[in-house]
Amino acid sequence: MSIRHLVLLKFKATVTAPEIQKIEAGFVDLRSKISAVQSLEWGTNNSPEGLAKGFTHCFNLTFADDAGRAVYLPHPDHLAFVEILKPTLDDVVVLDYTV
Amino acid sequence: MSIRHLVLLKFKATVTAPEIQKIEAGFVDLRSKISAVQSLEWGTNNSPEGLAKGFTHCFNLTFADDAGRAVYLPHPDHLAFVEILKPTLDDVVVLDYTV
Repeated sequence: MSIRHLVLLKFKATVTAPEIQKIEAGFVDLRSKISAVQSLEWGTNNSPEGLAKGFTHCFNLTFADDAGRAVYLPHPDHLAFVEILKPTLDDVVVLDYTV
Repeated sequence: MSIRHLVLLKFKATVTAPEIQKIEAGFVDLRSKISAVQSLEWGTNNSPEGLAKGFTHCFNLTFADDAGRAVYLPHPDHLAFVEILKPTLDDVVVLDYTV
């Protein structure tokens, strides 16, 4: 009943590499800040298929269940991170599924 | 050095539920047909955030490494599946990252 929470990011062209590194670190920090995050892995797109539609980053979080996600989404540390993330984004997709 | 291979699908509105079930089964079958697929999990979107941009399905495949992906992508069973999949799609995103 684990839930995978996938977040695909496309940054605005004006966002600098150091700003992106700050976002990457900030996302990873959520794992230690919010215990409902059971695991977090992430990486940058290296598909040779050319179907990423401009999305460069994927963050893949796992929650134990619905209750874990319900702790994470409104968590103050998550919301504070979203406020930093939002202005940098050209596009985002969030898709969750139950394993 | 594992590679996650994420495939997000948005079906055309004209595609029926039985057709979608056939696609789901066909994708899952690739795991047994192509040994380079180390694991495959999938599910349908249940995010409450409303940011899935119409993508309803995610298939998450793992390859041991670049070489595994290089076996999978041009594999005849993969290509045959893509021919069935393609006409059903309104949109697709493929994003791979190294774990």
